[in-house]
Amino acid sequence: MISQKMKTLVSNNSTIRAMFEEGKKLSKIYGEENVFDYSIGNPNVEPPENIKSIINEILNEEVPNLVHGYMNNSGYEDVRAEISSFVNKKHSLNLSKDNIIMTCGAAGGLNITLKTLLNPDDEVITFAPFFGEYKNYVENFDGKLIIVPADTSTFEPNLDVLREKITSKTKAIIINTPNNPTGVIYSEQAIKDLSSLLNEKQKELNTSIYLISDEPYREIVYDDATVPCILKYYSNSFIGYSYSKSLSLPGERIGYVVINKDMEDFNDVISSLNVANRILGFVNAPSLFQRVVAKCLDAEVDVNIYKKNRDLLYNHLVELGFTCHKPQGAFYLFPKAPIEDDKKFCEDAKKFNLLLVPGSAFGCPGYVRISYCISYEKIENSLPAFDKLAKLYSLRHCKINN
Amino acid sequence: MISQKMKTLVSNNSTIRAMFEEGKKLSKIYGEENVFDYSIGNPNVEPPENIKSIINEILNEEVPNLVHGYMNNSGYEDVRAEISSFVNKKHSLNLSKDNIIMTCGAAGGLNITLKTLLNPDDEVITFAPFFGEYKNYVENFDGKLIIVPADTSTFEPNLDVLREKITSKTKAIIINTPNNPTGVIYSEQAIKDLSSLLNEKQKELNTSIYLISDEPYREIVYDDATVPCILKYYSNSFIGYSYSKSLSLPGERIGYVVINKDMEDFNDVISSLNVANRILGFVNAPSLFQRVVAKCLDAEVDVNIYKKNRDLLYNHLVELGFTCHKPQGAFYLFPKAPIEDDKKFCEDAKKFNLLLVPGSAFGCPGYVRISYCISYEKIENSLPAFDKLAKLYSLRHCKINN
Repeated sequence: MISQKMKTLVSNNSTIRAMFEEGKKLSKIYGEENVFDYSIGNPNVEPPENIKSIINEILNEEVPNLVHGYMNNSGYEDVRAEISSFVNKKHSLNLSKDNIIMTCGAAGGLNITLKTLLNPDDEVITFAPFFGEYKNYVENFDGKLIIVPADTSTFEPNLDVLREKITSKTKAIIINTPNNPTGVIYSEQAIKDLSSLLNEKQKELNTSIYLISDEPYREIVYDDATVPCILKYYSNSFIGYSYSKSLSLPGERIGYVVINKDMEDFNDVISSLNVANRILGFVNAPSLFQRVVAKCLDAEVDVNIYKKNRDLLYNHLVELGFTCHKPQGAFYLFPKAPIEDDKKFCEDAKKFNLLLVPGSAFGCPGYVRISYCISYEKIENSLPAFDKLAKLYSLRHCKINN
Repeated sequence: MISQKMKTLVSNNSTIRAMFEEGKKLSKIYGEENVFDYSIGNPNVEPPENIKSIINEILNEEVPNLVHGYMNNSGYEDVRAEISSFVNKKHSLNLSKDNIIMTCGAAGGLNITLKTLLNPDDEVITFAPFFGEYKNYVENFDGKLIIVPADTSTFEPNLDVLREKITSKTKAIIINTPNNPTGVIYSEQAIKDLSSLLNEKQKELNTSIYLISDEPYREIVYDDATVPCILKYYSNSFIGYSYSKSLSLPGERIGYVVINKDMEDFNDVISSLNVANRILGFVNAPSLFQRVVAKCLDAEVDVNIYKKNRDLLYNHLVELGFTCHKPQGAFYLFPKAPIEDDKKFCEDAKKFNLLLVPGSAFGCPGYVRISYCISYEKIENSLPAFDKLAKLYSLRHCKINN
């Protein structure tokens, strides 16, 4: 008796759940310490230590009805002002509180943005590999997700194919940088070229095409890499941000949307994001944590922990003969499976208690995602399992043969 | 460039915002203490005092990555188990954690429930006067809200008209008890009769009709009134609950949905609510506050504060000659306007710095909503303004004439 749309989604979901259940089953049989779950993007690094004292400070200094009460659907004005100043300083911009809407994480932000933009049958284009939820978010509002296949040589956006896919139905482009699942940061040149192409197409088609950059991993970067800020390159642009990863607070559902100050119909867009926040049932981003993040704008989790994980696992996999792009951000590796059938490869990995996610789930078959936001020790302990997996496929330099 | 649907909503929203802005303007001219804002349902009673120590207890005793981390989309299992035990004790039921899904307030709960149930053009019926957001929630999923006009003699659901309105397209009924805006608690007899009618219609039409009870005011009741629990009377029933009012935490977005254990297709419904929580962008109810509410299940705000407000204002209005049903719950009065045009009456009230909401906003023209969740002192100070308003309409017993 559930809706047709949900029936399909529920049956797809069962596959994911089956995987999760199987992980639990393996843990029961072999012991949790012998199962290597690389399937989930749940940050293992602790939130900044001072989060606790910041929460206490707020509870002690502020009036309970204000801390836990309703505010404007966009969020507390002082919080939005502080975040805009912070973003201004970081990127030499000139935003005000009006450019910031507090949201229930990036997922909430993307949903209110798509609700604002999409008429039924509008098209939204994204680049494989992509976070699978984009399809659901777009279809929530009766839009259609169009996928540009991966350029597996660089994992940068394939603009030649994008050019072909843009039509008068194209309402938005979603990018995700640093990228889940590849860890690639789109280069400044790629962002510039993308922006030129979109500007050209807006003129040619006489439509508005919005660029939405989903950036929950913006702060998780290595080797002094920088993430270009799209607001500087393209007017009709949004950023969806989340503190889930940068502060390790994914359960608290706290983030924001930045709206480019040069956006067309700016006021309508702001009003609509507000109304969407309200009527989709978010009402507002959780109030205490709005105040918390405003007090730790400079705080970050210890990214070096993820970097050490990346280096250990990346080096080992490459040594084993896996082909893998070295990620500059996020906490994922996306190596090529040694066979075409990535699902089969994941099944084989499971024989050694390694839980990986097939690239097909991200629109990029033939690859697998390895989520390394687990403890260093666990990664160390998993290396022999990767050795065995490599041996199964007779990869070169296979350590186990030494 | 925003979507057609949102264009309409944004222009409607401007009316509400205009009202809000006008309130601020009046405050600037006459001073905040001389403006009596009875328009907003933002609880003024403080959250239970121990909320602060409970938060501290959680932060001190539990692992940060668990307190602030991801969990199942339904919420923490232990929290759901504790809530189900609590509900069982209160209503002599036999629920388990599987009957509870933690949500971002009641608004989030209603949205995931409607997403689960509605195919395009499905109809959802509600009884005037009703909370205006229901229309938006239903239309989020391309459903149509059908309104049963108010029975203004009792403000109980008009079942004769409901009978006529139910068709094969009817997917759900939404009730709200204690009611916003009337403060009426639907009687046990009304719930029984409603349930019989729905059971009869399910058989007759060979369809499933779901009953959704929106109960954010369940704990805000006076004079030992009790709110019947629909789970006992009708199998295909949901309760949408929120801690926004019972613990004065509206900004924290914390509540839950209860799913009747005898519901048809129970497992599909649960899976769908889970997926809907995820893909609408809630992902999960805010994590820290899930743990907070589990530790204060017995706590309640001091309802006597609201009761004192109700008595003061209700008695005064009746004495002035207003016709008003004495509310048994929530924190609203819903008197009849002395003229048909409730909007005109609210405009006149504004002349005395009284901000009221026209009943038209709740599908019940000719009435006005007075939200008395403000301080007792403020209500006392506003009484002369009500006197003048009554005088303007030459109501009997008008104190100002004494």
